[in-house]
Amino acid sequence: MYSKTTLVKPNKRVVPWNDLKLMVFDCDGVLTDGRFIYGSTNLELKHFHGHDGLGFKLLQKTDIMISVISGRSSEALERRCRDLNIPYLFQNITNKLKCLDNLLKDLKLSYTNVAYMGDDWNDVPVMRKVAFSAVPADAQPDVAKIADWVSEYRGGQGAARDLINYVLMRKGIYEKTVLAYLDSIG
Amino acid sequence: MYSKTTLVKPNKRVVPWNDLKLMVFDCDGVLTDGRFIYGSTNLELKHFHGHDGLGFKLLQKTDIMISVISGRSSEALERRCRDLNIPYLFQNITNKLKCLDNLLKDLKLSYTNVAYMGDDWNDVPVMRKVAFSAVPADAQPDVAKIADWVSEYRGGQGAARDLINYVLMRKGIYEKTVLAYLDSIG
Amino acid sequence: MYSKTTLVKPNKRVVPWNDLKLMVFDCDGVLTDGRFIYGSTNLELKHFHGHDGLGFKLLQKTDIMISVISGRSSEALERRCRDLNIPYLFQNITNKLKCLDNLLKDLKLSYTNVAYMGDDWNDVPVMRKVAFSAVPADAQPDVAKIADWVSEYRGGQGAARDLINYVLMRKGIYEKTVLAYLDSIG
Amino acid sequence: MYSKTTLVKPNKRVVPWNDLKLMVFDCDGVLTDGRFIYGSTNLELKHFHGHDGLGFKLLQKTDIMISVISGRSSEALERRCRDLNIPYLFQNITNKLKCLDNLLKDLKLSYTNVAYMGDDWNDVPVMRKVAFSAVPADAQPDVAKIADWVSEYRGGQGAARDLINYVLMRKGIYEKTVLAYLDSIG
Repeated sequence: MYSKTTLVKPNKRVVPWNDLKLMVFDCDGVLTDGRFIYGSTNLELKHFHGHDGLGFKLLQKTDIMISVISGRSSEALERRCRDLNIPYLFQNITNKLKCLDNLLKDLKLSYTNVAYMGDDWNDVPVMRKVAFSAVPADAQPDVAKIADWVSEYRGGQGAARDLINYVLMRKGIYEKTVLAYLDSIG
Repeated sequence: MYSKTTLVKPNKRVVPWNDLKLMVFDCDGVLTDGRFIYGSTNLELKHFHGHDGLGFKLLQKTDIMISVISGRSSEALERRCRDLNIPYLFQNITNKLKCLDNLLKDLKLSYTNVAYMGDDWNDVPVMRKVAFSAVPADAQPDVAKIADWVSEYRGGQGAARDLINYVLMRKGIYEKTVLAYLDSIG
Repeated sequence: MYSKTTLVKPNKRVVPWNDLKLMVFDCDGVLTDGRFIYGSTNLELKHFHGHDGLGFKLLQKTDIMISVISGRSSEALERRCRDLNIPYLFQNITNKLKCLDNLLKDLKLSYTNVAYMGDDWNDVPVMRKVAFSAVPADAQPDVAKIADWVSEYRGGQGAARDLINYVLMRKGIYEKTVLAYLDSIG
Repeated sequence: MYSKTTLVKPNKRVVPWNDLKLMVFDCDGVLTDGRFIYGSTNLELKHFHGHDGLGFKLLQKTDIMISVISGRSSEALERRCRDLNIPYLFQNITNKLKCLDNLLKDLKLSYTNVAYMGDDWNDVPVMRKVAFSAVPADAQPDVAKIADWVSEYRGGQGAARDLINYVLMRKGIYEKTVLAYLDSIG
């Protein structure tokens, strides 16, 4: 049973930037603008952003792993992760904390190694436990109050990239990573 | 026949928050951004928002019922309501007041028990009668003047969730409801 | 041959609001947000807005006729006009002035009877001739300078409705028209 | 191997506006809003803007050629370029600098003749070499710092048109070009 303290910002230790080895993202409202776009004949669309995509490519030049945990399931997200070579995709996850528990066991990591970006109450249990929790500018306001960091960018409009840039900066490897990326395309 | 007084804000009694048992939403411009998205071959899309979706899940932890009354009809809205277990969906409704009259009879409720969110003139007859009427930030300006409450959020961008949060607050059950939701997922 | 005077705002006589009998709208950038949304397999989408739709229904309670003249052609616009009972739809029109000339002959009207909303250079020849020319907030800036009126709303986000509301106000029939609409639905 | 100087703004000579003969555009984030819109069954959408389209038609009344170089590949972009008669379309290009090198050889032009608009790191190698580099308002911030010019408009919302208008102004042929376009439509 959750208690009222779940709804306020937890005290955390100083973020151990050097230990950060895994970035985990919610999908709807974080990698997308939060919209559920429905059409006739079961069509469903999702809006992802190219700046986030390049952010994932930057991460892939570092030792930071990437995971996406979504409460829903869609072909669109599956395709997006396949395009971007994101291996740890979990869909239809009601209990995100349990999902991340299992992933950390598999990767032999702990919550100290994790940064997480979510945008609504179902992300809060994870946000409270990870070393660094973040939300997009348009997250639910009471959820943003619990986050360690609020992006200036909205979900699906570069919020994930903004967090990636910030983490690379804090780890002191931003320039090195961009140059490694440029070398790889050039 | 409607008279000019229809176009100005009605005097209402203090909102009986404890009696509020039914929240009714217009679709286009409230649960969506108001856009009609047409393609070739009869394709039609609607943009809903995940924050509103989680708002409906919060309501389902309370004794407040949910209804959607739309002047139009679409497979997209039908699917959205099915996904979110919203049972009282009425589509193709020209006379929303008559529709709500009938629903209230079936549910043995009265207008004192109802909050309603609309965004244009066809919502005004209902807005004038319910205990609490609301509009999104981007409602038609002269319709917003008639509303009891104007959300800071635009339609399809969290306006419905904002109203839900507000109602839960005013009823004094916001924290309790969020915790019940968290318990249910975790 | 057009000369430089085409690019500056023409002097016009006082708008004869009582004579206004025809409102003409460009499609892309006026009734839509100006976007061309392309997919695979020839799919093309357009984003219209429900507030504009209700505006057209208001006009249909008056003696003002409605026309849409588009430089492009799409099934989406055809469907939108069919839904809204807009009879005078002209698509694939390079020379909009010639198109409107012919329509005015058919309807036995003159440019004194016309309000027009456009958003880019191809609308300017018509904008210069009609009694009242308007643009959405996000029209091309140098085209906006030529317009008699600039809406606060963007194309596809209520700019057409804003113009309709304004025209009904200036004609002194706004309240009467809204009440006639409410009577028709209720 | 790229060095740290790649990440700061290069010193450039005064822009030789009269020599400008080729405008090159990135697609995602420049001609579109940067979003990757995915659906079921391999559907992918892109949002282009009509104002950019008319900008390309203006350019086609001058001696400035147009090219689009995209890191990705889509039917949507192919169709958009076909519609607008843009001949020099290059898709799936990892190394944009090499691609442009080859195009310049074919056209017997040099980097002095080129203006380029991009929005992220993969555009930077080209942006550093061309006579005039530009970005939309919502480009990645550190990439915007390297650009010679930042549009007030966002990608897919008129940024390309804004650059085209600016270039025509600086070359002193803006009015002449608009009039030539107006003559061509009637």
